[in-house]
Amino acid sequence: MVAPLNLQDRTLSLAEARVLALLRQSGPQSRAELAEHLRYSRANITAVIKNLLARGIIEKLGLGESQGGRRPRLYGINGRLGYVAGVDIGATSLDLALAGFDGVILERLAEPADVHEQPQILLGRAAGAIERMIEQHGGSAEQVLAIGIGVPGPVQFDEGVLVAPPLMPAWESFSIREFMSQRFSAANITVDNDVNVMAIGESYAGAGKGIANFLFLKIGTGIGCGIICQDQIYRGCDGAAGDVGHICIDYNGPVCHCGNAGCLEIMAAGPAIAARGLGAAVSGESEQLAAALAANNGVMTAQMVGDAAKAGDRAANEIVKSSGRMIGGMLAGLVNFFNPQLILIGGGVSNIGIRLLSAIRQAVLRRSTALSTRHLRIEFSPLGKDAGVIGAIWLALEHVFTIEA
Amino acid sequence: MVAPLNLQDRTLSLAEARVLALLRQSGPQSRAELAEHLRYSRANITAVIKNLLARGIIEKLGLGESQGGRRPRLYGINGRLGYVAGVDIGATSLDLALAGFDGVILERLAEPADVHEQPQILLGRAAGAIERMIEQHGGSAEQVLAIGIGVPGPVQFDEGVLVAPPLMPAWESFSIREFMSQRFSAANITVDNDVNVMAIGESYAGAGKGIANFLFLKIGTGIGCGIICQDQIYRGCDGAAGDVGHICIDYNGPVCHCGNAGCLEIMAAGPAIAARGLGAAVSGESEQLAAALAANNGVMTAQMVGDAAKAGDRAANEIVKSSGRMIGGMLAGLVNFFNPQLILIGGGVSNIGIRLLSAIRQAVLRRSTALSTRHLRIEFSPLGKDAGVIGAIWLALEHVFTIEA
Repeated sequence: MVAPLNLQDRTLSLAEARVLALLRQSGPQSRAELAEHLRYSRANITAVIKNLLARGIIEKLGLGESQGGRRPRLYGINGRLGYVAGVDIGATSLDLALAGFDGVILERLAEPADVHEQPQILLGRAAGAIERMIEQHGGSAEQVLAIGIGVPGPVQFDEGVLVAPPLMPAWESFSIREFMSQRFSAANITVDNDVNVMAIGESYAGAGKGIANFLFLKIGTGIGCGIICQDQIYRGCDGAAGDVGHICIDYNGPVCHCGNAGCLEIMAAGPAIAARGLGAAVSGESEQLAAALAANNGVMTAQMVGDAAKAGDRAANEIVKSSGRMIGGMLAGLVNFFNPQLILIGGGVSNIGIRLLSAIRQAVLRRSTALSTRHLRIEFSPLGKDAGVIGAIWLALEHVFTIEA
Repeated sequence: MVAPLNLQDRTLSLAEARVLALLRQSGPQSRAELAEHLRYSRANITAVIKNLLARGIIEKLGLGESQGGRRPRLYGINGRLGYVAGVDIGATSLDLALAGFDGVILERLAEPADVHEQPQILLGRAAGAIERMIEQHGGSAEQVLAIGIGVPGPVQFDEGVLVAPPLMPAWESFSIREFMSQRFSAANITVDNDVNVMAIGESYAGAGKGIANFLFLKIGTGIGCGIICQDQIYRGCDGAAGDVGHICIDYNGPVCHCGNAGCLEIMAAGPAIAARGLGAAVSGESEQLAAALAANNGVMTAQMVGDAAKAGDRAANEIVKSSGRMIGGMLAGLVNFFNPQLILIGGGVSNIGIRLLSAIRQAVLRRSTALSTRHLRIEFSPLGKDAGVIGAIWLALEHVFTIEA
């Protein structure tokens, strides 16, 4: 690594930011290619490149293909400018990654964790792990330029604090940013909702690459949605956008923990699938689920229902399809409203597989307008359980610099 | 008017476009104010102003308030650069406006029209009316820089053509742009869905001014939604965004003209209100509606139901409230997803008034998450039936120039 970038020197002009974004997106480019893509004059591009080179943000690479004349010099992101770290806090897991400034992941770490712990303890553990990963690379904590952190709860983005998080009440109003800054003095700390972070991961490094408008739906204990709108994560006016688990799908449905009746989440997410699987096991409707229940000490999970469905169990299959229909029915409304090009399905429950996806697709196609589904694809998240930590790296990279005008 | 701006000279640099946008938004500014707001250097601003002045796009105005030293020169949009026209085509009406390049409306015209007419006839009439309005101002058709057109149907925005429009089948694939260009050779022609145009009107000149994320819901014969996202109109991947009238609110509901059951539109829009009003009149449930029906030659309208509700009729009131509850229930889902700061309600059915609005508000507050309604306001559109034609003017102004990187 080169000398650490001064924290006071964290601004880019709009032109510099656009060159950096293009190099991230499309890889090494020549001066002429940059000028053409960004429609800047050669003189303008030359000045921008000079500045970025002087600050060590980009570097000279080898020569590119000749376009008729001399082979042109290529420029690329300087991965050795510093480190960025990604932290993905799940309900029961802590996922960490260390990357260079070019986004290339250098180290990964995953360990069990309990989100009910005090934030000081959990974040202290994360900070320690990041420090150890850096040490292994011969670096130091001051070389961390930015840290992105995904948390399973609603986040007030500008402040980097959680707001009334049902899973982690001890974190309410705790300044994650302040805590982490004490350990990483040169790092910009950015905190976001886990689903937003996953959507960012897919946008930069997954199936959302190059797609301006798409949704990332996480189905687990709850159901949430990350929204990429015009190539940017969209957080809404209070940072509450994407809270689709509490969209009502049945006014006469069961009461949700939020106090309303018939929320999608209470009717179709993991616990609902498990509860209906338990019912089918206990009632004798499914011998296979009854056997699975007995083998798992009387605990039923959504995954067990999915496995039984895969093995051909009729009752389990109907439970999975019913959940998919409910989720797809809600998504059909979002498709009419938002007209996305892609919907990615992730989260633990997505491991149930193709039966669930198929039911979701059918419900969306049946209930959306023809025009809004013309180019729509609905797929499982290709990054899967890595979407969070990869997204946290890119969230961090988005916030290394402040852009001036 | 000055000499018409050459159509070949219709590009702005990004910096020029940002200066122009700021002058539009905030009115006349000094060089120092522009530099400060846009965080450009004084030298940069001076160069941009010089270019814009030379092309007649902005003009020198008087002197502003002293900030301690000499009183500074102010700059503003040159309204006399040319004309823009706005055309709002409704199912039964044609609304037109002529404005200067500063967006100040010079002439207005509204006349009945039938959207089932051939496009050549209706657009020919609109073109003739624009020409006459310009003549009254001593101008000529070549001085029209841009025309914005709102149409009551789905639009493929890049092409400026309607796609499978249920109300106006004769317009399918008809090139509105080509037709209008023959009459206005120097004008950029932009066509958009009527609800998008209304949202644009509110964004520039109504209650949406300065609000980054808001929705405009039009309730009339159908129900549609214009989406302003990060200060821009959002059209989605196929231009189909905002088609919320076909979101399902009851899987066992009546079949809609789109072929699906229980669409919001078939259950809650104008015709549904009128049909339920007719039912209450005929069944003897409401004497007031029966009297109104007799007085209107056996034809019931949503407005008549609204009037009866206003006059205290119990049955009419319940019909209005029920419609508001259904619309609010759907909006609650959008609020959870999109977390807007404002929802504006417009369209003919909004004339029913406060009873409808109140029912909508109640349903949204009951069914949305607490965080997503923290800053939410739900109001009637202040521009009302003018939102379309005012929005068409601003749609035109947005497309006078092409912005170069």
